[in-house]
Amino acid sequence: MKAAKIRLYVEHALGEGQTVPLTRDQAHYLFGVMRLLPGDAVSLFNGRDGEWRAEVVEAGKRGGTLACTGQSGAQRNPPDLWLLFAPIKKARTDFIVEKATEMGAAKILPVQTEFTNAERIRQDRLQAHATEAAEQCGGTFVPKVTALQRLSKVLEQWPADRQLMFCDEALAGDTPTLPDRFAGQPWAILIGPEGGFSEAERARLSALDVAHPVALGPRILRADTAAVAAMTLWQIQLGDWR
Amino acid sequence: MKAAKIRLYVEHALGEGQTVPLTRDQAHYLFGVMRLLPGDAVSLFNGRDGEWRAEVVEAGKRGGTLACTGQSGAQRNPPDLWLLFAPIKKARTDFIVEKATEMGAAKILPVQTEFTNAERIRQDRLQAHATEAAEQCGGTFVPKVTALQRLSKVLEQWPADRQLMFCDEALAGDTPTLPDRFAGQPWAILIGPEGGFSEAERARLSALDVAHPVALGPRILRADTAAVAAMTLWQIQLGDWR
Repeated sequence: MKAAKIRLYVEHALGEGQTVPLTRDQAHYLFGVMRLLPGDAVSLFNGRDGEWRAEVVEAGKRGGTLACTGQSGAQRNPPDLWLLFAPIKKARTDFIVEKATEMGAAKILPVQTEFTNAERIRQDRLQAHATEAAEQCGGTFVPKVTALQRLSKVLEQWPADRQLMFCDEALAGDTPTLPDRFAGQPWAILIGPEGGFSEAERARLSALDVAHPVALGPRILRADTAAVAAMTLWQIQLGDWR
Repeated sequence: MKAAKIRLYVEHALGEGQTVPLTRDQAHYLFGVMRLLPGDAVSLFNGRDGEWRAEVVEAGKRGGTLACTGQSGAQRNPPDLWLLFAPIKKARTDFIVEKATEMGAAKILPVQTEFTNAERIRQDRLQAHATEAAEQCGGTFVPKVTALQRLSKVLEQWPADRQLMFCDEALAGDTPTLPDRFAGQPWAILIGPEGGFSEAERARLSALDVAHPVALGPRILRADTAAVAAMTLWQIQLGDWR
């Protein structure tokens, strides 16, 4: 059997004997760009039903149909980990969303801090980046990218049972270790903005019972580097890399 | 005293009472772009003498002079860690060099694997990226970026005392732990190309006494994500993040 090289996220239910209608964009990608023909294979996932092999039944310019031919992988959800970050320049914001998806975030929350310049984000664009990253990285889960919110607001309503690892470049040299007793619990990682946190933000963060300040080595990391490093640290110690 | 926001890498010796002539590019950056005037402050490092405060003595269009006014930080070299990677698309190759610098690589070695498309790299460009990343991340060390070499050649001449962590996406699920007895020794990290290693490469790597295969979680990571994740893993366990 020819292996399906193309992985596609769809909204539709997947299962034995299930047919899957394609949107115009998906049809354009599969038949216009990738030149698939009836009978060709694709891998599908929808964030709920695992990964399925499917084959092209109908290929059209504005639509088409696939049919599931068998399950090729179980549904795998990431740990209950949120990534909060302050949006920066466009390309790096895109990268953070992509990397957070690859690294196994369950939800991605852009936040506006006092020293963040970004007044708005393109939520749909960022969501599309998360979807594409999930397609690329072999995952079966697409994290939701939320709307831009003020960090102060997010912290006011912070869930009491969600631990928060916050990466502060003002800290230096501490060995980053996370308490093992919080493994398996809801967590979040907050990456500081490139201008750092304000004193008020730092005070508010430190006052949270669930906050775990962590230093990321002796050099200053850009926000996108810090996101990957922090998620690695967490995944190794408490997440699904263990 | 006004804090020096600008950090500049120079080749020249730095020390008490030392004056530092500027190249045309540096003068353009400081006086044309950043609009510094005589008396303004800059931070300098050269990879050997730590970080120095300096002030502008002469500002010209094609050159200028700075004078060291005091040491602001000791020289800090990263651990003896090489990063080997297979160059990919231009932007991501640039990112890998930038990230490797921030994460504390001592040397960056682009290597050509059997499944690498890149036939050549712009070594000077990549070196400039490393320098800029060192300026940005507050480091006092700039890793050297070597010329593109064949991985097979590099492995043939592999130093017997340098441990090699190699990241292989064909491995899955192993907890990444590095033997503590090799802390403080020379190391290298090899990031696989996006197409994976060939069977011959995998065999050659596995045959090395100093090789340590490591899996990076259950999802497939892009090479630039893998570089940061692998270096985080190493820095936490054996490097200068401990």
